[in-house]
Amino acid sequence: MSDTLIVSAIQHPVQHSLEATRDYLSNAVADSAKAGARLMVLQELHNGPYFCQTEDVSCFDLAEPIPGPSTDFLGTLAREHQCVIVGSLFERRAAGLYHNTAVVLDTDGSLAGQYRKMHIPDDPGFYEKFYFTPGDAQGSPHSGFQPVMTAIGKLGVLVCWDQWYPEAARLMALAGAEILIYPTAIGWDPEDDDAEKQRQRDAWITIQRSHAIANNLPVVVCNRCGFEASPDARAGGISFWGNSFIAGQQGEFLAVAEDQPTNLIATVDMAKTEHTRRIWPYLRDRRVDAYQNLTRRYLDH
Amino acid sequence: MSDTLIVSAIQHPVQHSLEATRDYLSNAVADSAKAGARLMVLQELHNGPYFCQTEDVSCFDLAEPIPGPSTDFLGTLAREHQCVIVGSLFERRAAGLYHNTAVVLDTDGSLAGQYRKMHIPDDPGFYEKFYFTPGDAQGSPHSGFQPVMTAIGKLGVLVCWDQWYPEAARLMALAGAEILIYPTAIGWDPEDDDAEKQRQRDAWITIQRSHAIANNLPVVVCNRCGFEASPDARAGGISFWGNSFIAGQQGEFLAVAEDQPTNLIATVDMAKTEHTRRIWPYLRDRRVDAYQNLTRRYLDH
Repeated sequence: MSDTLIVSAIQHPVQHSLEATRDYLSNAVADSAKAGARLMVLQELHNGPYFCQTEDVSCFDLAEPIPGPSTDFLGTLAREHQCVIVGSLFERRAAGLYHNTAVVLDTDGSLAGQYRKMHIPDDPGFYEKFYFTPGDAQGSPHSGFQPVMTAIGKLGVLVCWDQWYPEAARLMALAGAEILIYPTAIGWDPEDDDAEKQRQRDAWITIQRSHAIANNLPVVVCNRCGFEASPDARAGGISFWGNSFIAGQQGEFLAVAEDQPTNLIATVDMAKTEHTRRIWPYLRDRRVDAYQNLTRRYLDH
Repeated sequence: MSDTLIVSAIQHPVQHSLEATRDYLSNAVADSAKAGARLMVLQELHNGPYFCQTEDVSCFDLAEPIPGPSTDFLGTLAREHQCVIVGSLFERRAAGLYHNTAVVLDTDGSLAGQYRKMHIPDDPGFYEKFYFTPGDAQGSPHSGFQPVMTAIGKLGVLVCWDQWYPEAARLMALAGAEILIYPTAIGWDPEDDDAEKQRQRDAWITIQRSHAIANNLPVVVCNRCGFEASPDARAGGISFWGNSFIAGQQGEFLAVAEDQPTNLIATVDMAKTEHTRRIWPYLRDRRVDAYQNLTRRYLDH
């Protein structure tokens, strides 16, 4: 891996059709490549609306196989621009078995690997447990927290709700990830007041910066932006807050987006991991002899 | 546990003698109690200079048994002011066996429990591995990551370097801790430039706020302040940066100190943990079936 990696997080509002989305992504990837980016991170479920606002069996029609049409499209883009693209798809694995899956297209256009979201949220407006089976713990080629090897390095790709779990970031780091990547779709309930909205966004920024810090790794976060109404007229919809960001190995901001469509670009010094891990050597001192209870649900009394 | 808890983090520079330290702490605890505080958190190794700047066998003379003179002193203060005090001592457990140990004195003056620092740092100016054996993983009454039950609730007491390990905070939360507490002694090498100093302090703040967020628990951090020269004239000494803080269950700041002596007081809404855990329910979705490798040092290839 070269010492310097230019990264682009492509943040945008939902487009009116899959064709329009592909046009948007083609342009955004081309523009980012012109700026020197070799790693492009797309937002969660970028192909269309965030359909999990309601539970609707017809939405399973949106799912697709992997490899499939979207990995073909993204692979062609990646090869054309000699970059790595991290996409986020609604995967149909079998009848009645769907995942929220990140895909990694390598610089030669091949599918370098994929990651099936391991932690699945479910709360009003984010009914993901209805749609997505959590990724397998083991037993399949894509199980667990495995980084994906590419021409530009080993990518620790996680998805959205995973961002709240230090365990996920740590396991990627222990498996050799050189950068942590989060496609995400998070926004506000319009009924929350401004102070609560601010606390939520700050918490979301802080927890992801903390994964950079705890693991001495850069972090790339790509979030949706814009308002999406709910199909349920009684619900208020979601204001996706954007605020994609790229942080260095001490959690320092390298680039931060606001709430508008943005190709957020930053230059990451990949060699800083080696330096930071020498002087703040957390991996040296982990108490692996005392961590067994991390595999327990709760330590009941 | 009552819904509201007033907390004080007592941040101060090193005093010129143990007697002066006791006077300082007596006044600070009395003042904090007058302000309503029922939980007082002292900084790491508050009884004297941060002696770990060099490796010097004579410093073992500073260690004391637990229970011992300092727990007697702190217990008397706690009983007098009907508060819980978290202190930080250099413990002599046996000849040649020393720990960096937090002690918890209950409102009746009794020693409610103790915690032996599990993660021990060692870097230039912070030679802690010379002085402190890491806390036992198991087999002793004070082993591992066990919260301490007190009259005001179950306290998840950790110490300094532990603050960089999400594993430690999580294990305390799984064991029922209602609040996370970090006595700490961290400062700058005067040779680092301002940008690096800022990144270090931001990282330190961010990682500890992240423990609040990941576990939906309030966090209290008490750091030393002021400059302490090194006994080694070739070394630059340490500027302890203060910046003690108290954060709520979303990682939001409730109170933040600067670099001066401060009794930092905040009112913590303990009931917010229940509320936050209902709507951002991270404990619900932990993949305990996929976390086994957290007990591995590294996943070698």
